[in-house]
Amino acid sequence: MPLGEREGDTSKSRFIGVETYFNKSMTVVLDNNIFLEKGCDFVVAPLMSPTYRPSLMQQFGSISVELRLPFTKSDLNPSAKIWNTKVIGKISEWIDLDSPDQTLRKDSETVLKQEIDKAAYLSLQACLLPTPKRNTCANYARCVNQYLQLKGLDQMQLWLRIPLGKPDDNSSAIFRTPADCWKIWNSFRLLCDHHSNLLVTLDNLNALPADNSLNSWYGEPVSAFIIHTDCFFTTGDDENVKHLSKNLQKSITYFLDHSTQIIISEDRVNYKEMEEYCFDTCSVAGTDHRIHRLHPYMDCVRSLYQQLDPLSERERSLFAFRDDLQPTVQPFKDTLEYVAYQNSDDDEKKFTKYKRAICQALLDRVPDEKASEITTVLVVIGAGRGPLVRTLLKAAEVTGRKLKVYAVERNLNALSYLHVSDLLGSFGDNELAPESLDGAQRFLKKDGISIPSSYTSFLQPVTAWKLHSAIKAKEDILRFETAYMAKMHNVARLAPSQPLFTFTHPKSSNKESNNRYRNLQFVIPESAVVHGFAGYFDATLYKDVHLGTEPTKATPGVITWDDHYFPLREPICVHRGSTLEVNFWRCCDYTKVWYEWCVTSPSPSLVHNCNARADCMWLN
Amino acid sequence: MPLGEREGDTSKSRFIGVETYFNKSMTVVLDNNIFLEKGCDFVVAPLMSPTYRPSLMQQFGSISVELRLPFTKSDLNPSAKIWNTKVIGKISEWIDLDSPDQTLRKDSETVLKQEIDKAAYLSLQACLLPTPKRNTCANYARCVNQYLQLKGLDQMQLWLRIPLGKPDDNSSAIFRTPADCWKIWNSFRLLCDHHSNLLVTLDNLNALPADNSLNSWYGEPVSAFIIHTDCFFTTGDDENVKHLSKNLQKSITYFLDHSTQIIISEDRVNYKEMEEYCFDTCSVAGTDHRIHRLHPYMDCVRSLYQQLDPLSERERSLFAFRDDLQPTVQPFKDTLEYVAYQNSDDDEKKFTKYKRAICQALLDRVPDEKASEITTVLVVIGAGRGPLVRTLLKAAEVTGRKLKVYAVERNLNALSYLHVSDLLGSFGDNELAPESLDGAQRFLKKDGISIPSSYTSFLQPVTAWKLHSAIKAKEDILRFETAYMAKMHNVARLAPSQPLFTFTHPKSSNKESNNRYRNLQFVIPESAVVHGFAGYFDATLYKDVHLGTEPTKATPGVITWDDHYFPLREPICVHRGSTLEVNFWRCCDYTKVWYEWCVTSPSPSLVHNCNARADCMWLN
Repeated sequence: MPLGEREGDTSKSRFIGVETYFNKSMTVVLDNNIFLEKGCDFVVAPLMSPTYRPSLMQQFGSISVELRLPFTKSDLNPSAKIWNTKVIGKISEWIDLDSPDQTLRKDSETVLKQEIDKAAYLSLQACLLPTPKRNTCANYARCVNQYLQLKGLDQMQLWLRIPLGKPDDNSSAIFRTPADCWKIWNSFRLLCDHHSNLLVTLDNLNALPADNSLNSWYGEPVSAFIIHTDCFFTTGDDENVKHLSKNLQKSITYFLDHSTQIIISEDRVNYKEMEEYCFDTCSVAGTDHRIHRLHPYMDCVRSLYQQLDPLSERERSLFAFRDDLQPTVQPFKDTLEYVAYQNSDDDEKKFTKYKRAICQALLDRVPDEKASEITTVLVVIGAGRGPLVRTLLKAAEVTGRKLKVYAVERNLNALSYLHVSDLLGSFGDNELAPESLDGAQRFLKKDGISIPSSYTSFLQPVTAWKLHSAIKAKEDILRFETAYMAKMHNVARLAPSQPLFTFTHPKSSNKESNNRYRNLQFVIPESAVVHGFAGYFDATLYKDVHLGTEPTKATPGVITWDDHYFPLREPICVHRGSTLEVNFWRCCDYTKVWYEWCVTSPSPSLVHNCNARADCMWLN
Repeated sequence: MPLGEREGDTSKSRFIGVETYFNKSMTVVLDNNIFLEKGCDFVVAPLMSPTYRPSLMQQFGSISVELRLPFTKSDLNPSAKIWNTKVIGKISEWIDLDSPDQTLRKDSETVLKQEIDKAAYLSLQACLLPTPKRNTCANYARCVNQYLQLKGLDQMQLWLRIPLGKPDDNSSAIFRTPADCWKIWNSFRLLCDHHSNLLVTLDNLNALPADNSLNSWYGEPVSAFIIHTDCFFTTGDDENVKHLSKNLQKSITYFLDHSTQIIISEDRVNYKEMEEYCFDTCSVAGTDHRIHRLHPYMDCVRSLYQQLDPLSERERSLFAFRDDLQPTVQPFKDTLEYVAYQNSDDDEKKFTKYKRAICQALLDRVPDEKASEITTVLVVIGAGRGPLVRTLLKAAEVTGRKLKVYAVERNLNALSYLHVSDLLGSFGDNELAPESLDGAQRFLKKDGISIPSSYTSFLQPVTAWKLHSAIKAKEDILRFETAYMAKMHNVARLAPSQPLFTFTHPKSSNKESNNRYRNLQFVIPESAVVHGFAGYFDATLYKDVHLGTEPTKATPGVITWDDHYFPLREPICVHRGSTLEVNFWRCCDYTKVWYEWCVTSPSPSLVHNCNARADCMWLN
């Protein structure tokens, strides 16, 4: 039973799962988890008896019949569609592919292969891989990688279970801190070359995640978040009303809003026989009425889902475009598509800011007593389809000032006192505002005003697995040297953003170049992988009237701009507390403007987009 | 005048250069350095007056005529061929592309561009780039990278000058230790994405390199080694006989044998006018007879060159194949070319070892008194063209034992007491000896002997720029996941080699798999870049008779085997004293055998050659 209906939400996080134990019949498992009242939407179920070991088979030959039945008997009972939509295969937890014990290691390799083959044959959507038992997980990762790289298997995901705290069992030594947990995941996925079908499933165990311990995971491919029944508590007499700590509520809410599924896992189960377990736990004594025994836990998660802020009409329409990469605009070449203009023209909040800036400028330039004599000549550069001009006329009306407006699309031939331009890109200067306004400057009178008077781009290092995967899928290495626009959603912002390049208009000297170079240093508080940089801008339209997208001072409600994204060819691992040093250049020649960028610390990357080989803005 | 004629040496290290100062006329420079008695072979000469600054030009306009002539007047005087073969362009040393002083930085960018353009126009083979002045050399590297990546410029090399010791000038702060020097070079070339036209020129200043400080440079692209006149000393009264310390002699000898050119640089020059400098220093007072004033220094280097060990006939014939990558053999598929057989069959030292092993085995099995009764049945597996069989017959003759020999090419149908195989690859098991001998084992009597009785592969991390560049030039990323054979020459062996996989024959159990997995840890004493791993083998033919290529115990004089080479897709930087952890797998399925490998520390790489996607040995 889905968590609820949040209009516009098409993500998988609407569905809740339960981790179950082995039963020879999957039909039984499904009957007792899904096909009953208040059941879950999917099960995480073992595919093989936990008692099966290949080496024991070899040793005892045909003595034990039970041992010869590694798989559930009822493979073909549930229909293919049910296997595909209702079952996540749980790979045997005892496997230890990096054990120094050769027999255990070989058994583990054999079983992993058998189970994954089985899961692929049954068309499962995903398998849950057990937590690595050692710091060195090279052999485990290699075996998993072998399956990931098989061509036929590219429909099935593999989810690596990673604890968020210290487990109780003997594997605890390697998960001392949250940073250790992330580090093991990071090694594993590096060994698997960032494969897009390798995801991480977070198991919060009984620990409440510390305030910032989840930050490291925000830009990672978190397929599911496992909550143990021990984490829930009751406050009144009613055992059927479960509660969660504020902290855990916050985490779950975050994940529900980021396409991560919730899985309930039962602790302290006291079952006699595994085969009978499902019946035991699900039937309600003395009646035919069967309710899922974990429904109070699921209800608790359900209420969190239902408390999520509803998606606005705009958010609903853009839901599918979260983390979707768009090429940047060629300001002098592209005929902007209708939708882009629509966005920009409909952006009420943006025009409100422009109106306020122009009103202030007009009041400053023309005192009340001269309002009727002085006509201010105003040139609109990049007038688009006209709404900016309408805004100006409204400003004249409001202030009672006389205005003569020339509206041009980047071609100028007028003398004026006031320039107003709507040429800002999502990275400030990336739509060639500096070059456009350079051309216009000679027509601006000496005491003339430019609106915007200045704009600054901002950079912020991010973990952004989804964007990285999307670029990797393009199979063209130069796509990693290209800037994009994206509505970033599944990203971890690793440090406060910093200002990069500033342009001021009018320029003090015509000779001032539009080339820029800047070196920025970010201190990264927790170990993380940096996939690239988010780009924003903040513009001063006039005096204290700002407009921009930089998260800490973004103009509320503006819709014109997505975030900018600059990827790195090789994601860079940065250790807790160390410094990430990055260099950005804005380069110009006679025909084009482009950015180059590189990391110089902790270890140097290549210089991206050298000579604009991947990406540029053409000047003509 | 070349350093000498070492038969078979076709490398550039036969030629010696001199670093000179600016003169407006290149003809004058050449006349006074090359076209006179005991002259050098090439000059390293500035292309532009060191007084020229673009910002001064702008400031003073046309006041100073001199300043408007940045380049030598005589561009077209020396013929194109002379520019190409006799002149290395020396880029102005004052440039500082990472200076916080914007004017200096922009002047530097302009001048670097002008000079490189000029050098390219003149078809110079290379330009010498001045030493970076700061720890952060991002902008310098970016500008250099822009030229390296230009398509038209791919004929001209850029040599980055890196000191080996602490320079006297104010740049000393960043070159405190030899490790600092290497680190700056490493950053620079990472920023330039390991471009094959970016090389390093080592400037030993006045310091004697410490014993191990040059190790870091052995696998790097060292184009030239600059020795300062101050490093030379005289012992007797004769000012014209110069000497060098033993340590420096050793370094120079190494470089002369590794295609690195020597350049003499003059210290403490007391010249009045740069324009007249060349005349002053080169004429011999009172005569028309002109001798290069630095000839005693060049003579000293010349004598080192002439003391190099002469190349053997075999070395001469293989000189061109140093560091040449060859595909590995498909033992069950390739019809070995005539030359390969020739090598293997001509390998006298190898057959001597086999003969010794067989003699010992025969004497052990058949006591003297039974020599005439017992006939030993012997099967040769992989008999090739017969020389091994001849070796065996000779062994029978020497020991007076009776022998019945079956010589087969991997297809067996005989019962025998003795197996002899010549199936060892340069990595031991890589020519499928384990699989071939598995098939043969059922025909070996219980007390039978296998020669070889065991073999072990060895691994060693290496810096091997030349091999890396050659693979990169193939422009297919999977070529970095392929094993090669190579006569490694320009490599730095970073740590002692370690044993990897061992195979023993006959096997104790038929069920014993030929799969292998091993994790090795190497402590790297000096910071270095690891391009990949050299592979060797050592085989026990019989008892104490060994045969192999592992450097510390290699059989002298064997010629059958080159080194094996396993590359890494991304070269890995390892810091001084840290541990490099590597994992290797030998994987088998029904149709093929292959290796997979990855690094897990200091940072994980992907698993190379997953599912044999790049490389394997086919079983049929």
